[in-house]
Amino acid sequence: MTTSGGNIFSAMPGHLADEQMTALLTAPHVRIERIVSRGTSSPPGFWYDQDWAEWVIVLAGSAGLLIEGEAEPRRLEPGDYVHLPAHVRHRVEWTDRERATVWLAVHHAANLLDPR
Amino acid sequence: MTTSGGNIFSAMPGHLADEQMTALLTAPHVRIERIVSRGTSSPPGFWYDQDWAEWVIVLAGSAGLLIEGEAEPRRLEPGDYVHLPAHVRHRVEWTDRERATVWLAVHHAANLLDPR
Repeated sequence: MTTSGGNIFSAMPGHLADEQMTALLTAPHVRIERIVSRGTSSPPGFWYDQDWAEWVIVLAGSAGLLIEGEAEPRRLEPGDYVHLPAHVRHRVEWTDRERATVWLAVHHAANLLDPR
Repeated sequence: MTTSGGNIFSAMPGHLADEQMTALLTAPHVRIERIVSRGTSSPPGFWYDQDWAEWVIVLAGSAGLLIEGEAEPRRLEPGDYVHLPAHVRHRVEWTDRERATVWLAVHHAANLLDPR
């Protein structure tokens, strides 16, 4: 295998109607994604409920991440990271309206294709 | 399991004689580390030669990463990432002397404890 690389802040979308997800690494047990969002939120009543765990860090912008059972969204700013074990329900309450929010998400499981 | 989190730029060491590594997430198939270095380089003749793959991104500072077989080190600045498959030999030629270089490394394998 050869090495591959890039810059996570490159090729930023000029306009965003919705979140943009880009896979940076895909392997059976780990998937690394860049997520870019601006002024977006999860649909009302929607919760992410994933069969795999997710470690996520905000690298630019800011966001409000609500974890089920917590009273208020966590405000995430550059450098802030959170680990979400499988089936910890969560939603994005808001992302920065003034600039792009860049997330780096590391999804992981013993086998992402059949994580149970 | 509960969620956990923090800020990757917090608790930065004031003085660094060597690299500082902090585990942010440890699982059988993935290990996420913060690495902080300032003005350091791999010892002469030393190459990292890992049984697992590593995806690494520089979040602050800058560094020169030499991959075996390449003529010059790759200059990595904030946002630059590289995927290093298992046994791709590499070394750190230099890191910024003026400020801390913060790396986020995602080590991964089907089983990190017995990656072969």
